[in-house]
Amino acid sequence: MDEVPKKDERRQILGDMPPEDFRRFGYRVIDWIADYLAHPERYPVLSQVKPGDILSHLPESAPDQPEDMEAVLQDFEQQILPGITHWNHPAFMAYFGITGSCPGILGELLASGLNVNAMLWRTSPAATELEQRAMDWLRQWVGLPATFEGVVYDTASISSLVAVAAARESVPGLAVREKGLAGSGDASRLRLYASEQAHSSIEKAAILAGIGRQGVRKIGTGADFRMDADALERAIEEDIASGWRPFCVVATVGTTSTTSIDPVPRIAALCARHRIWLHVDAAYGGCAAVLPEMRHVLDGCEEADSLVVNPHKWLFTPLDFSAFYSRKLSVVRQAFSLVPEYLKTPEDNQVRNFMDYGPQLGRRFRALKLWMIMRYFGLEGVRSRLREHIRLARLFASWVDDHPDFERCAPTPFSTICFRARLEKENASIQSQDALNEKLLEHVNATGRFFLSHTRLNGRLVLRMAIGNLRTTEAHVRGCWELLCEQAALIKRTAG
Amino acid sequence: MDEVPKKDERRQILGDMPPEDFRRFGYRVIDWIADYLAHPERYPVLSQVKPGDILSHLPESAPDQPEDMEAVLQDFEQQILPGITHWNHPAFMAYFGITGSCPGILGELLASGLNVNAMLWRTSPAATELEQRAMDWLRQWVGLPATFEGVVYDTASISSLVAVAAARESVPGLAVREKGLAGSGDASRLRLYASEQAHSSIEKAAILAGIGRQGVRKIGTGADFRMDADALERAIEEDIASGWRPFCVVATVGTTSTTSIDPVPRIAALCARHRIWLHVDAAYGGCAAVLPEMRHVLDGCEEADSLVVNPHKWLFTPLDFSAFYSRKLSVVRQAFSLVPEYLKTPEDNQVRNFMDYGPQLGRRFRALKLWMIMRYFGLEGVRSRLREHIRLARLFASWVDDHPDFERCAPTPFSTICFRARLEKENASIQSQDALNEKLLEHVNATGRFFLSHTRLNGRLVLRMAIGNLRTTEAHVRGCWELLCEQAALIKRTAG
Repeated sequence: MDEVPKKDERRQILGDMPPEDFRRFGYRVIDWIADYLAHPERYPVLSQVKPGDILSHLPESAPDQPEDMEAVLQDFEQQILPGITHWNHPAFMAYFGITGSCPGILGELLASGLNVNAMLWRTSPAATELEQRAMDWLRQWVGLPATFEGVVYDTASISSLVAVAAARESVPGLAVREKGLAGSGDASRLRLYASEQAHSSIEKAAILAGIGRQGVRKIGTGADFRMDADALERAIEEDIASGWRPFCVVATVGTTSTTSIDPVPRIAALCARHRIWLHVDAAYGGCAAVLPEMRHVLDGCEEADSLVVNPHKWLFTPLDFSAFYSRKLSVVRQAFSLVPEYLKTPEDNQVRNFMDYGPQLGRRFRALKLWMIMRYFGLEGVRSRLREHIRLARLFASWVDDHPDFERCAPTPFSTICFRARLEKENASIQSQDALNEKLLEHVNATGRFFLSHTRLNGRLVLRMAIGNLRTTEAHVRGCWELLCEQAALIKRTAG
Repeated sequence: MDEVPKKDERRQILGDMPPEDFRRFGYRVIDWIADYLAHPERYPVLSQVKPGDILSHLPESAPDQPEDMEAVLQDFEQQILPGITHWNHPAFMAYFGITGSCPGILGELLASGLNVNAMLWRTSPAATELEQRAMDWLRQWVGLPATFEGVVYDTASISSLVAVAAARESVPGLAVREKGLAGSGDASRLRLYASEQAHSSIEKAAILAGIGRQGVRKIGTGADFRMDADALERAIEEDIASGWRPFCVVATVGTTSTTSIDPVPRIAALCARHRIWLHVDAAYGGCAAVLPEMRHVLDGCEEADSLVVNPHKWLFTPLDFSAFYSRKLSVVRQAFSLVPEYLKTPEDNQVRNFMDYGPQLGRRFRALKLWMIMRYFGLEGVRSRLREHIRLARLFASWVDDHPDFERCAPTPFSTICFRARLEKENASIQSQDALNEKLLEHVNATGRFFLSHTRLNGRLVLRMAIGNLRTTEAHVRGCWELLCEQAALIKRTAG
């Protein structure tokens, strides 16, 4: 221990990987990713391993002695890759199809090379100021007024949690930050409203915020899965009459199941009348507002108190990046800011310290990748790509509509289609209909050629095709459609 | 719109960056990072820009048309880099010194290339199973029993928030998840305990969870800044007597100001007696437990209900990576799990779906980088590096102790030293002493050669040197010491 090793030895024992090795392995990984993204179809889109398969190949303990990066990269390909479901595969059409585009990957790479924590302005002024700028660029792209200021979080779950916390903080006479929710008696019986189609993260946020599931009132939707604003109005009035305090409405622009769009203008008017915080979950749908012909999906959102749109969903940004906007960022700050002595800086009054605006102190330099993506593709480049996804979705929807053995189960306002195969018999039971679609989904996914997901609408199983990958072409959509037709016919023949 | 462009044209209008371009720019970025990490001293460690400087160089709107990646990378160097505070600089000794090591950067790069969401097992079985395995490897390294299971979150702020939510959920007779905190009357007057040296994220978690600041009781510390367990005991008993429900104690192993270690064994015994959830914030200090001679810092933690250790702090992992462990992961699941139809999978009963264990649905594939780091350095490699940091810190502490113009302000159990310059006069006022140290800190940071931070202990300004970067050598520590001595003398001469 006492003798200091020579420089080379020392580096090996004490330093980071030598730069020349980093360069060599870095090139290797770049090559691998370039090849991978050129041909993701070489892999099954949905991993075909069984539970425990991957674990069984991984040693039970980490090595005592350093290993060669060569070996680690080989094991990545041999042990890890078979267990990857390929989100970058052009036939990944489950959940929401996404793309971590190449300029975004380069942005992530630079950010991890710098490894700055964007908690305070001083801990990297460029990370803070680029966050302000890139978020303002995106605000302009989706057409929100300049009164909206942005903060980057990791996920929409956190963005919506922040919105709920700010809504809670703004309830007059409560002072939840200081006093908590207990002990204020009925004054703190808070109610949050969201449609029965809203994302599960809204209810999770309410649970975490101490509102509880009983504090969440789910509002019914019409045949088009949009929140019934009349029902919302009645619910609010009923609740006020029975001693609840309505404090937050979450409207969704692009629900997860069907991508339905809640009637935000009417909801906003209701919220204004009752002084309720309106948060809009536009995590998916808000991305489409970059298109002038789709800007209407955010109609009314200029009246919202906060809104989230996720570039990692449909703006080609690698995970994670959630863009939160609010007209009342000072309330967000009030809900969250706690500055211990060791985080005070001389310039606190002149700058934005983003750590003051959320639950997390540690903050990656996420703005870098968005900035690189926006510049590389440009507004028109992003628009043409979104337009193509919507075109493909409408094309697929038209095939479904025109085919006697299939039916569409919801409107298709964006690039996600809800549909199902149907049995010819008029009197086919719901069970047999569901069983057909369950089998169909299983068969399609088991091929490894396409990956679709499902949902349940009005109690019935529905398949979802979500188009959002930059590598998805008409040929992929057509290929999936042909497979669906073929498999549906096969299942019916076998069953019959 | 109707004519389909030819393949090459199409790619340009619709696809991602062409693979050959990605390869070229990828090499470029790798080269840049390799050079950067070989000589981070070429840059001032603390960015020298003024508020607004970076913003003023960034156009007010994003471009309409695509830009050349060449230009974007140039702007990165010219517009962004001057506003970076260099966390990878060997003389970054503020807050906690960290390193995003090269194997970790390669791990981040691969993860962003794959861009999988590790929310469900099926959305990448390898992401889930590698998370289980790598977290178990780390558990073994820090010497926690096998009853602790791990989940990866982004930050310790979220890990501690999860702990508070689980603690709250486990309070008998409350059912906070269902009923929330209001309306249960005094039964929900919950109290959380942490030392006055605990991290601000603990209080933030309590605010967010609806406990409120009044529900947080800060326990005093002794001369060594460790929680006074007797005071904790008295506080709990007093609170019970006056109708509060003690539900959670957060002990810290390595507080942010002084890296003090709360007496966990005594605290654990108290928690067991009163059936209170014990969460240990070992975000920084827990990393050192990888050393057998430092394992004692986690003594008693085997009795904790949950514990967090942050590989992105002192285990060379790029931001973000927080390792959360609990003996009661089923309670965590109970607090958070909400599974909408579209996230149900056929294998739900056989696998772990990590989305069920936290507030966030979206989850990056973080396990990959930790796995690569643990294999590349190996247990012994990590140990030798941690040992060197601790050796350097003790060396610096000895210089402080031996110098008449400086004094150490807290014990140095890890690799962070609290110290200050002192005025010779016996009767020097606190103000003049603080002013000296404030100036000293300013002068040192303004050189751009070193970056230190500060805290306040017993009301007095204290400087902090935190050693945690793989590039920091004895020469850097000595250089900083010489600068401190020189500047302190200069300030005193000028003042005198």
